[in-house]
Amino acid sequence: MFEQLGLIGCGLMGGSFALALKRAKLVKRVVGYSKSPSTTERARQLGVIDVAAPSALLAVSGADLVLLAVPVAASEGTFKAIRHGIGAQTLVMDVGSTKGDVIAAARLGLQGKLGCFVPAHPIAGKELAGVEHAEASLFDGRQVVLTPIKPTLRSNVQRATQVWAGVGARVTTMTPEAHDSAFAAVSHLPHLLAFAFINGLTEQPEGAAFLELAGPGFRDFSRIAAADPTMWRDVLMANSEQVLRQSHAFRQALQQFESLMIKGDAQALEQAIAAASRSRAGWQLGSSTESDA
Amino acid sequence: MFEQLGLIGCGLMGGSFALALKRAKLVKRVVGYSKSPSTTERARQLGVIDVAAPSALLAVSGADLVLLAVPVAASEGTFKAIRHGIGAQTLVMDVGSTKGDVIAAARLGLQGKLGCFVPAHPIAGKELAGVEHAEASLFDGRQVVLTPIKPTLRSNVQRATQVWAGVGARVTTMTPEAHDSAFAAVSHLPHLLAFAFINGLTEQPEGAAFLELAGPGFRDFSRIAAADPTMWRDVLMANSEQVLRQSHAFRQALQQFESLMIKGDAQALEQAIAAASRSRAGWQLGSSTESDA
Repeated sequence: MFEQLGLIGCGLMGGSFALALKRAKLVKRVVGYSKSPSTTERARQLGVIDVAAPSALLAVSGADLVLLAVPVAASEGTFKAIRHGIGAQTLVMDVGSTKGDVIAAARLGLQGKLGCFVPAHPIAGKELAGVEHAEASLFDGRQVVLTPIKPTLRSNVQRATQVWAGVGARVTTMTPEAHDSAFAAVSHLPHLLAFAFINGLTEQPEGAAFLELAGPGFRDFSRIAAADPTMWRDVLMANSEQVLRQSHAFRQALQQFESLMIKGDAQALEQAIAAASRSRAGWQLGSSTESDA
Repeated sequence: MFEQLGLIGCGLMGGSFALALKRAKLVKRVVGYSKSPSTTERARQLGVIDVAAPSALLAVSGADLVLLAVPVAASEGTFKAIRHGIGAQTLVMDVGSTKGDVIAAARLGLQGKLGCFVPAHPIAGKELAGVEHAEASLFDGRQVVLTPIKPTLRSNVQRATQVWAGVGARVTTMTPEAHDSAFAAVSHLPHLLAFAFINGLTEQPEGAAFLELAGPGFRDFSRIAAADPTMWRDVLMANSEQVLRQSHAFRQALQQFESLMIKGDAQALEQAIAAASRSRAGWQLGSSTESDA
């Protein structure tokens, strides 16, 4: 049980974390701060936070648990702003989709207090941003990846694991490098492809007419293209090297399909589709743990 | 009300059409034929068809409604096989995802009886093939595109419209050429990209490990990669020219994103993502009719 959560960024992720902690009775008090005072006030009105703090530093003062749920690009400034409010017993986490850049920001911003920081990435979200869409169940059954670094105190990794398990998530630990290369493959690249697919479509003169004919396959394939532009700008910039590497692998696979179509090699084309179909049919969300199998 | 549906191909689509017609009380008797006798027999056992015919020709004899629900590549042979069973009052339809090639097959196969044929493409389906997954509600609220050609009797277009509306679908009419270019953009290309994405991923040494971390975004984006290899081989081969054209437009859009990432132009990258996000957020399944808006 934590005395006080200092929440920096009262949006969908931060707000859901606060609600999930409250639901699990893991926190007594949530003090929140958002860059926009109206967001902080809305979070208070909705009962997501108990107290609205006028600054990030004041939200953190007296907190034994701190969550940064701000755009990744704002991490360094936020770490700097809260450094002097962090006590020896404070556990600090983020929720960023990329870890290398957030860790670099933490090194610069937290300096001697880096031991308190456990980088975290909850694999959860929605297309709808904002505290209005926050919900206590957002992390239920979802994976959370922790990427501790050398200075991270082992006791804090343990506490972080307990907190996320306490709000219903399954916790995995890996290096920041392994995290960023894996998520370039399974998350960042699909977003990039979905963005490019939609723009490639709508830039055609008949784009709007085509869209009227789109069905359920299109709906699911392109859902992630509706994601938040600021967040995804940051993700693609922060992890550009790995994403470009994945995009290269993708383009090679696409090229293979195209040359089979051009050659009219129906048999090899069917084999290539069958390989993809088998791989995808054999995959299940959360299949890495027995509980979800 | 039809006297007899002659169903050629008792799989997911054909079976669902038979069940939907029965549910709507639009048919008295369904005579079915599949290439594999065990499929025909299973369809009979499941009550999808009433009588199992030993040949396509015998399934069609005496039918006033015929549905071809066979792999697109088998169309010409099927049309030839049933030609002599088609009467002056018979309405013949298919369910193919591509129309140019089915129409070419019909010209060769049906010859003088081409007036009876109304090419149809129901925008419905599942990843699970087979008559076991057939369901009467498969076409509820879904779009069906009819692509009549010059020889098609107007009265048959009218009857086809009534049948599909009767099983719950919304009917649109367009030229085969417009159909094939639109579906290359909104259906065939996404499938091609999803196949290439999965193969590009699984061909990497860490592919399996990456897949364990994949979340809901991956799940939806790649769902269509699990589609039926034979069917999609036929679709991509039959409509390869249009699909390659769409793939080219896609690769250009992807290239634009990549160069913004390489240049580090965060502002332009955000604008490109925002354009995609707005387009996708503004789209809704079935938004082309008021009833679904």
